[in-house]
Amino acid sequence: MSSIELPRLEALSRRIQEEQLLAPLWPKGSGVALVDQTRLPFERKILQIESAAQMADAIRQMKVRGSGAIGCAGALGAYLAVRGAPNSPEQWDEMVQSLREARPTAVALRRAVDEVLRAAREAPRDSAVLAAADAAAAFVERQLTMERALGRHGAAAIPDGATILTHCHSGALAGAGYGGRVLSVIRTAHEQGKQIQVIAQETRPYFQGARITAYELRELGIPVTLITDGMSGAMMETGRVDVCIVGSDRLAINGDLANKTGTYLVALAAREHGIPFFTATTRYNVDPTCATGNDIPIELRDASEVLTINERPITVEGVEALYPAFDITPASLLTGIVTEGGLFEKPFEEKLRRLLDANDPA
Amino acid sequence: MSSIELPRLEALSRRIQEEQLLAPLWPKGSGVALVDQTRLPFERKILQIESAAQMADAIRQMKVRGSGAIGCAGALGAYLAVRGAPNSPEQWDEMVQSLREARPTAVALRRAVDEVLRAAREAPRDSAVLAAADAAAAFVERQLTMERALGRHGAAAIPDGATILTHCHSGALAGAGYGGRVLSVIRTAHEQGKQIQVIAQETRPYFQGARITAYELRELGIPVTLITDGMSGAMMETGRVDVCIVGSDRLAINGDLANKTGTYLVALAAREHGIPFFTATTRYNVDPTCATGNDIPIELRDASEVLTINERPITVEGVEALYPAFDITPASLLTGIVTEGGLFEKPFEEKLRRLLDANDPA
Repeated sequence: MSSIELPRLEALSRRIQEEQLLAPLWPKGSGVALVDQTRLPFERKILQIESAAQMADAIRQMKVRGSGAIGCAGALGAYLAVRGAPNSPEQWDEMVQSLREARPTAVALRRAVDEVLRAAREAPRDSAVLAAADAAAAFVERQLTMERALGRHGAAAIPDGATILTHCHSGALAGAGYGGRVLSVIRTAHEQGKQIQVIAQETRPYFQGARITAYELRELGIPVTLITDGMSGAMMETGRVDVCIVGSDRLAINGDLANKTGTYLVALAAREHGIPFFTATTRYNVDPTCATGNDIPIELRDASEVLTINERPITVEGVEALYPAFDITPASLLTGIVTEGGLFEKPFEEKLRRLLDANDPA
Repeated sequence: MSSIELPRLEALSRRIQEEQLLAPLWPKGSGVALVDQTRLPFERKILQIESAAQMADAIRQMKVRGSGAIGCAGALGAYLAVRGAPNSPEQWDEMVQSLREARPTAVALRRAVDEVLRAAREAPRDSAVLAAADAAAAFVERQLTMERALGRHGAAAIPDGATILTHCHSGALAGAGYGGRVLSVIRTAHEQGKQIQVIAQETRPYFQGARITAYELRELGIPVTLITDGMSGAMMETGRVDVCIVGSDRLAINGDLANKTGTYLVALAAREHGIPFFTATTRYNVDPTCATGNDIPIELRDASEVLTINERPITVEGVEALYPAFDITPASLLTGIVTEGGLFEKPFEEKLRRLLDANDPA
């Protein structure tokens, strides 16, 4: 089945071109085009993905990353699985298994895969591919709509003239293309005409802040200053920060959040200096099975990622390393949670439950 | 005047060989041998320094670094100035000017230079070089004695089996060769037979932790695990840290300390988790002209040091950076201050004043 028969995927692809979105992936030809984020910002290499297994590899190798983008990758990856065996639904679960498990902490990934497979299963056999395509496109479109809504709610907390500190990357390339979570807030404030600037932490060991957040901000024409991950305290004690916003890879129902290691230190410093600290998150990052942060498992990634940069060692042989991908920031350190459903103040649990129960944002 | 006529410098050089010290510099031939710390740990390149101006360059280029080592470099550099113009004391001040100003935050540097020039001035004209050599050697020897004393006092606070977290490098190569400040404590605890291990933060942008602290610990046979500067909170919230020790580039008389950026975040996280947090410091780092940390100027280093690694950019053009070399950790976050004169608990001011007034440690 050629892509011309899949109008909703075609429409999504056109929308991404027309709205000048910084999309991490989009339907293209018979498959999915995907920006290789490990090459950014020095090279914008586009990969063509044609199967769920290739999509799983791209996720595992961090070519696509960030929970929103991983969700979109899961949705489009599941569509590729259905397309690969349209008449053998009994094979779909096996075909998406590596996709579902590509990042253990990514809740949105499994949710997206399941949503697309369910749509395919519920459709008549001869329109399973169309149903999967529609469901995948709907997932991505819903994500874009959410990003704009989240941006509006969050921008209300950004004063004109503010310097915003952020950690890691929670931007367009980590979402569906508008601005993901944190960058949606910043982009919206900027589009509202507020004179803002951003301090971005480089985010070792992968330098997502240096490579991707700084790149997106420059693309958007927003002034950005890079610092190392140890400098947030120095910035705050010299009065250089007005507000902090970070993403959250996963949010427990009480508001405790797992996000890229280093987030927790920013939160501790912000509290010490009375600086508002927000996380920007969507319903897809809220995990109601986690009562608190203690229930969120922390992915320990390969220590060699700490020990080398561009394949060159940064220390001598015989030195070990640890690489917990996330740390836990307790809800008590949060000023508020920015979501597509509003900006929530404490206590969070009831509001997060309502967000999970709500219909899709208009 | 050949070095054979300068017995105290000869004796110092011998001692450094015999005691297997990890010295950053030592008298050699007509000048000073200096380990180029920018090449460590992959290459142990020894530079031969023959003038105060060359010593100033080595300090400015971070080839020798750490306040103790910079003090020794100042002492030996001032000796080289006197040796360069033994009969023209009116030129000495000009000859050491670049040396005195090579690192604006380094108090010990100016103190060492002044001490050696004073000894040369007070000596009869025909023995000015000998007097400068003796004073420089005395400075380095005193530093070594201090390091061992500081190590003994600090090791009392290290439980057997402890995991110690440290930031940046405050070790032998930052001191005179035993262990500087932090590594003297760790080395002494290890030599006392305690089963300890160390978590070392890599310390961006210069990677002093990865390159030098990890290297020294491996040389000493002490297990070391490397983490990035954003991970101290993650380590503490997962129960991996028993005690923190950091150096201090400069200590206000109330105990507020300036140390490598990132220190303050470790201190905030340690307080949050009830983990003891110490700074190891000598009288030469205490600045009684600073009542509090507010009086300590923060050196803003060249932002390009954040923007590139091994001369490769880590972000796109058009992105700015900030590089405050230090942050300020308030005394309120300290469990204690380890010095050559004892382990001080709060309040610190009177004890620090007594340390400054005391005679040299025996």
